[in-house]
Amino acid sequence: MAARLRFGMVGGGPGAFIGDVHRMAATLDGEAELVAGAFSSDPGRSGQKGAELGLAGDRVYASFEEMAAAEALLPDGVRIDFVVIATPNHLHHPVAAAFLDAGFHVVCDKPMTNTVAEADDLVRRVRESGRVFVLTHNYTGYPMVKEARALVAAGRLGTIRKVVAEYPQGWLARPLEEEGQKQASWRTDPVRGGAALALGDIGSHAENLARYVTGLEIEALCADLTTFVEGRTLEDDANLLIRYRGGARGVLYASQISVGEENALSLRVYGTEASLAWRQEAPDELWLKTPDGPEQVLRRGNGYLSAPAHAATRLPAGHPEGFIEAFANVYRGGMAAMRGEPSALDFPTVEDGARGVRFIHSAVESGRTGGWVETGSSSP
Amino acid sequence: MAARLRFGMVGGGPGAFIGDVHRMAATLDGEAELVAGAFSSDPGRSGQKGAELGLAGDRVYASFEEMAAAEALLPDGVRIDFVVIATPNHLHHPVAAAFLDAGFHVVCDKPMTNTVAEADDLVRRVRESGRVFVLTHNYTGYPMVKEARALVAAGRLGTIRKVVAEYPQGWLARPLEEEGQKQASWRTDPVRGGAALALGDIGSHAENLARYVTGLEIEALCADLTTFVEGRTLEDDANLLIRYRGGARGVLYASQISVGEENALSLRVYGTEASLAWRQEAPDELWLKTPDGPEQVLRRGNGYLSAPAHAATRLPAGHPEGFIEAFANVYRGGMAAMRGEPSALDFPTVEDGARGVRFIHSAVESGRTGGWVETGSSSP
Amino acid sequence: MAARLRFGMVGGGPGAFIGDVHRMAATLDGEAELVAGAFSSDPGRSGQKGAELGLAGDRVYASFEEMAAAEALLPDGVRIDFVVIATPNHLHHPVAAAFLDAGFHVVCDKPMTNTVAEADDLVRRVRESGRVFVLTHNYTGYPMVKEARALVAAGRLGTIRKVVAEYPQGWLARPLEEEGQKQASWRTDPVRGGAALALGDIGSHAENLARYVTGLEIEALCADLTTFVEGRTLEDDANLLIRYRGGARGVLYASQISVGEENALSLRVYGTEASLAWRQEAPDELWLKTPDGPEQVLRRGNGYLSAPAHAATRLPAGHPEGFIEAFANVYRGGMAAMRGEPSALDFPTVEDGARGVRFIHSAVESGRTGGWVETGSSSP
Amino acid sequence: MAARLRFGMVGGGPGAFIGDVHRMAATLDGEAELVAGAFSSDPGRSGQKGAELGLAGDRVYASFEEMAAAEALLPDGVRIDFVVIATPNHLHHPVAAAFLDAGFHVVCDKPMTNTVAEADDLVRRVRESGRVFVLTHNYTGYPMVKEARALVAAGRLGTIRKVVAEYPQGWLARPLEEEGQKQASWRTDPVRGGAALALGDIGSHAENLARYVTGLEIEALCADLTTFVEGRTLEDDANLLIRYRGGARGVLYASQISVGEENALSLRVYGTEASLAWRQEAPDELWLKTPDGPEQVLRRGNGYLSAPAHAATRLPAGHPEGFIEAFANVYRGGMAAMRGEPSALDFPTVEDGARGVRFIHSAVESGRTGGWVETGSSSP
Repeated sequence: MAARLRFGMVGGGPGAFIGDVHRMAATLDGEAELVAGAFSSDPGRSGQKGAELGLAGDRVYASFEEMAAAEALLPDGVRIDFVVIATPNHLHHPVAAAFLDAGFHVVCDKPMTNTVAEADDLVRRVRESGRVFVLTHNYTGYPMVKEARALVAAGRLGTIRKVVAEYPQGWLARPLEEEGQKQASWRTDPVRGGAALALGDIGSHAENLARYVTGLEIEALCADLTTFVEGRTLEDDANLLIRYRGGARGVLYASQISVGEENALSLRVYGTEASLAWRQEAPDELWLKTPDGPEQVLRRGNGYLSAPAHAATRLPAGHPEGFIEAFANVYRGGMAAMRGEPSALDFPTVEDGARGVRFIHSAVESGRTGGWVETGSSSP
Repeated sequence: MAARLRFGMVGGGPGAFIGDVHRMAATLDGEAELVAGAFSSDPGRSGQKGAELGLAGDRVYASFEEMAAAEALLPDGVRIDFVVIATPNHLHHPVAAAFLDAGFHVVCDKPMTNTVAEADDLVRRVRESGRVFVLTHNYTGYPMVKEARALVAAGRLGTIRKVVAEYPQGWLARPLEEEGQKQASWRTDPVRGGAALALGDIGSHAENLARYVTGLEIEALCADLTTFVEGRTLEDDANLLIRYRGGARGVLYASQISVGEENALSLRVYGTEASLAWRQEAPDELWLKTPDGPEQVLRRGNGYLSAPAHAATRLPAGHPEGFIEAFANVYRGGMAAMRGEPSALDFPTVEDGARGVRFIHSAVESGRTGGWVETGSSSP
Repeated sequence: MAARLRFGMVGGGPGAFIGDVHRMAATLDGEAELVAGAFSSDPGRSGQKGAELGLAGDRVYASFEEMAAAEALLPDGVRIDFVVIATPNHLHHPVAAAFLDAGFHVVCDKPMTNTVAEADDLVRRVRESGRVFVLTHNYTGYPMVKEARALVAAGRLGTIRKVVAEYPQGWLARPLEEEGQKQASWRTDPVRGGAALALGDIGSHAENLARYVTGLEIEALCADLTTFVEGRTLEDDANLLIRYRGGARGVLYASQISVGEENALSLRVYGTEASLAWRQEAPDELWLKTPDGPEQVLRRGNGYLSAPAHAATRLPAGHPEGFIEAFANVYRGGMAAMRGEPSALDFPTVEDGARGVRFIHSAVESGRTGGWVETGSSSP
Repeated sequence: MAARLRFGMVGGGPGAFIGDVHRMAATLDGEAELVAGAFSSDPGRSGQKGAELGLAGDRVYASFEEMAAAEALLPDGVRIDFVVIATPNHLHHPVAAAFLDAGFHVVCDKPMTNTVAEADDLVRRVRESGRVFVLTHNYTGYPMVKEARALVAAGRLGTIRKVVAEYPQGWLARPLEEEGQKQASWRTDPVRGGAALALGDIGSHAENLARYVTGLEIEALCADLTTFVEGRTLEDDANLLIRYRGGARGVLYASQISVGEENALSLRVYGTEASLAWRQEAPDELWLKTPDGPEQVLRRGNGYLSAPAHAATRLPAGHPEGFIEAFANVYRGGMAAMRGEPSALDFPTVEDGARGVRFIHSAVESGRTGGWVETGSSSP
């Protein structure tokens, strides 16, 4: 096993779900250790979380600025190798910039930034710094998503004609933000959550997943954005028609008012030769359909799968893997890059993040104008 | 059991799938008997089919005009009570008009007509004639679709916010019409099939199903229509964003190039209080989700279902019913109306047909102009 | 289409579910017409049902003996061609014997008889009469069951090692017979229902289905029979270990106290090369698994299926077929035999019925003695 | 977070799947750290694995005896708190005995021992030592299994009548042991694997799962054991009828020749009031059926679940958890006990292990004698 990397976390304080996921994912394979953190903008809460996690007191910081500065002064072999950003969206850019500038690798939650300008700025900083930047579009870490991508790349689907990506959730069907629910509060706040709600929180995952599997770039989109819950300013339901470069068409929607849905992200891709379907809630299965043979259910862990799917697999077939394991695959790929080692595991980059931010803003524009919006070059 | 009705058929000649379905559906409950037909525009083929079906030779006609005229002259108790129209789309209007004018009830395939003017004309003729007109939007005959409608009507879903209706098929992913496949040939021909392909053949079913269950009327729509298979002039893939009167939003798509899909019509309806999901390929089940309880799977034949679902059920729970039985429910409702008897079974009417034709034409217009189209009053 | 056959029914009076199924199944394809009946041992109820069905009054009889005698005297072209027996089990033998002796073909419900002696007697009578005898083990009429049989016959599974057949129901989990429920009353009565309850009513279906698909004969069995509901004398739950000739092993159970189960008949067959699984409640699908490839879902109506599956199919893929259609396939095969025509559709015979009766009685013996019972030759 | 425990591992050398699972499960929540090991009986391989895992060289031992002795001499705060036994079955007893005697807590794979005498000996040693003994019947760690147990305990099923537990696998359908596959080699060897193959490896899981959920004790069983693959001496397929104390009946089978099955462990429990079903391959769902309402699908992470299910949950609903997380729950419960802290998470004990060993031996006896075997008191 490679030398263990040290990491710190910004955000992920008491009550935050995703901070613990990052910690479990980063450490699952014994390749990393949490040694520092600025877990909350409230120093008391930051200290409390650090103590819970058994961190040394002098590695728990009151602010991310202090953390970046102090860690940079620590000797090699003690200071962190990378930082994990698990804050509300508006802090992604300043925190990432601070740590990149201080010479650290960065693992950052999505959406990457709240503005296109910030996204482009991060792209520039990453390129100039030579540091590794990992965006945790974690769904691409699932082995059967990697299999889907491999099947498309191998031409098994022929030319892709249609892509249907859905991400319905129900948890924001009522105004949780008025009840003080923390996750809902910052997401529905344009200052902290950004220009979009459903689009940013989950629509960006759907867009990234579709692009990861198919390799298709969006040429134009037409969005219908709706705010169903009174008192909100951001959309809680977003339905999109999509035209991909090269002629494929798409339907993509993200909804947080779909009562009873949990995290029902799904992807269907239809080509001239075959089609495939995948659902996040049954992630070990991938359905492949052809015009003239039985439907096939490919299952994680079997010998007939591609090398990328195998590389992302820890357990034999039939022993379910889940969300944490997929998340950990993003980390494994990213940490290999940090160590300068080759890896069969890829990970979402700062450029993926910039594409996602452009996608969100194009959709918001379309929703406002009520027509098709050309996305221009989605690469910064 | 009521006195058996006599019926004739126009269309449904050798090789036509839907003609046999009509016959099985109409006669399943022993309430009707096929006694006449003009099965093909080719007299020889019409005669062949009549003989196969054991009809008297003098009740097999060379044309629908001849049939309407001749049957009208037969005495009561011998002549047909109603005609079934199972022809390509462009003949629906002239055949229906002829038989309505001759005093017969009509059962007609969808889409009802190829133009809005024809649709409005049929509405007028039906109203003036006092005859019963049944449009075979057969999917509304499924018991669990009726349960879905009953749940919505009873307020179990609260206010409806979102509707997702999908109808993907794969059979036209390659140019079957160039291989002489009869079903493909007339559907892809604008003269016989009408102004739309996927929209008319299956999109109209999706629209009807969504409206039947929710009661919502379309206020505006935005369509992206694509012709993927070379040589076609009509769309084989149609993706729509929908705004319903009252504020609900919808996604609706119909596709005939979705390789590997059979008849994957599905409907999901999300309300403020609950949501439901139904799939045509597993028609005996209806999924109901609420914000704070387990998902529920309602199954046909159980005592907890509504009266309309019970009325549409022939078998105990666990003994699958299918497509023919649902189709037969449309007939039962329609035939009760013809006999002037009350029935717990409803059926799609000429007004439903006119709404469907308007929907198709609005979508075609939107696809052409690339923007939102207000549908105006969808009722003629 | 062949000349339409005429048939009569014994049993299936008001309130009986299976009588209507027989009628719908026999007439679905327009190959038969119900013209006579002795629907109940109560003449008034028999007449009521005959009237409901629109039969001529002189073809509705007060007893099966009268019916057999009277029909035999009617001229060719008027009298029935075959009788359908839809009575409680104890009447199967006398009714079948009477109609066979009077020269009629017979379609009979299962289990065939209440005793082995009666079963052997029917075998003898059928052979001597040269009449067609059809036992309605209807589950073998499903197209995908026929596909399963074809796959086994073609060697796709290699040598069969294990068979798991289950038929759980929940409807007799409480003493419905004490509430006057007619179906429960006669089935739980040893005089009318026979020596077994769950075994006879549904276990015999499971045994027949396993044998139909695999061709395996039972060599020995070990049964654990339990009566859970107080007041019953017959078993309402039956669990069996089975040894097939040639070395395969089996697990088979039938239960009517499995709360919440509807008609969850299922079959799994494991061979050296592949395995398959089928569930009655999703009858259009057949699952095929191999050691080193993806699972496959074969679906009714597709071109890759065997000739027997195609012969049993009425609708294109994706339009569900159900219980009635499968039942109708048994009739189609049987009626072809009555007409002396070849057919790709097989049907369960009097010998199948005799094997089933032996199976039931061996299981009852094993349950009583608590050990393995060798079934001897299962062929009479 | 509690002070981190230190642990060592015996077994789990290069190529062993379950060793890595133990490591990931033990450390998932940051509550433990691997610090020592005797990973293989081959010192070179043991050292190799220790190096891979980044252990200090002086904590990697050439034998478990050496490890137990050496660790016992280390100071508090350095030496291990517990040992994990991930060896072939025949070593479970000597390793467990050595570490218990040296004062360590023990986490041991199943089946606990190869003989009843060894099992009883371990029970005695655990009781006398006061140490914690955790048997990794990991399937009881799944949240929805805990929900099932809670539903039964709360009386939601009424009186349990029937239990169906199945564990089919296909991986031993051919003689992998002849190809040098390590996992197959020791399992099929009676010296190392014990008196049973399928029964010991997976049948014991099925028995434990059924008992955990229902609380029922086996009174008698009747087993049919078969060796399908030539060259084996142990059964690779085991089918059992079971009678529970109090009158419930069961069917249980374990098979390793069920081609195409992965780890299809499932449990169905039928009571007088309701029934439930759970499948290991879709572990986040639990199906609940009642006589007169819709089926319900309970899903992990929802507010309506019981306290034990919540305690075993790390992620929000809709983000799949899997095998590792369930395994980690067994560890969390066990480690809380080691720390002397209360926990809402239970774990399988040495007494559970002894019951499992008795179950295996009773089944082997029944298979040999061909009749019912009373299991006597299953508690040592």
